[in-house]
Amino acid sequence: MEISEVTAIEQLNAEFYAAFEAGDLDRMARVWADDKDAVGGVVCVHPGGPMIRGRGAVLRSWALIMANTSYIQFVLTDVATKVSGDIAVLSCAENIITASDDDPGFTAGGNVATTNVFVRTHDGWRLWLHHGSPVMLRAEEE
Amino acid sequence: MEISEVTAIEQLNAEFYAAFEAGDLDRMARVWADDKDAVGGVVCVHPGGPMIRGRGAVLRSWALIMANTSYIQFVLTDVATKVSGDIAVLSCAENIITASDDDPGFTAGGNVATTNVFVRTHDGWRLWLHHGSPVMLRAEEE
Repeated sequence: MEISEVTAIEQLNAEFYAAFEAGDLDRMARVWADDKDAVGGVVCVHPGGPMIRGRGAVLRSWALIMANTSYIQFVLTDVATKVSGDIAVLSCAENIITASDDDPGFTAGGNVATTNVFVRTHDGWRLWLHHGSPVMLRAEEE
Repeated sequence: MEISEVTAIEQLNAEFYAAFEAGDLDRMARVWADDKDAVGGVVCVHPGGPMIRGRGAVLRSWALIMANTSYIQFVLTDVATKVSGDIAVLSCAENIITASDDDPGFTAGGNVATTNVFVRTHDGWRLWLHHGSPVMLRAEEE
């Protein structure tokens, strides 16, 4: 049975977060496109960070983040996905649960507003752009 | 002379920032798509803010921001644009110069990492998603 493209994108999006939760850099590397698939190379903005361009630099940033994350879990809400041509755009809210080595209890780790852009490659859809930003203001404070 | 789609997108992107710089809500409103043009409605994330969905809420947020901005100027760097089908994705760094009523001198207002997504409508390209996030960490601190 063919799955719809929106379902395929949302499954790949789930794999991106599962790879991060598992701290598995190989799985994370398989999610991302090659630079040649994406004009300007792949792009990643971690919350509060600068724009990182290029597969090498992006995967190094994930290696560092994974090395410094003992536990993280994502609950995604408010997901909207649109596919056109060879691009798919998914926007969502990341609701994060974390634990640190210093504090073994689980804590709500805040909220991140996220845009993920996927590109269709010869090997199927891959992640081209991940942009996560910290939600520091509540809506009523905007 | 036909202009390329990438040029058209970059001109519309420039108009988005010019509308903000001019504090002109009518110009800003003309840049944005209608909700029916964009799955899940139009989307806007201001730096540090939550994801705002829907043309009405997004334009209200711009009215508030413009009312509270006495002077702002953008210099865009590191612009990369890709068009496929009815979607165009532009990522860039916003380098911001601001002045406040309290301090009439111009000050560097920081850096914002930005993803802008445009959608092709019956009336031409329009802005569908704007995602700006504060750059609080330098690359070497990542």
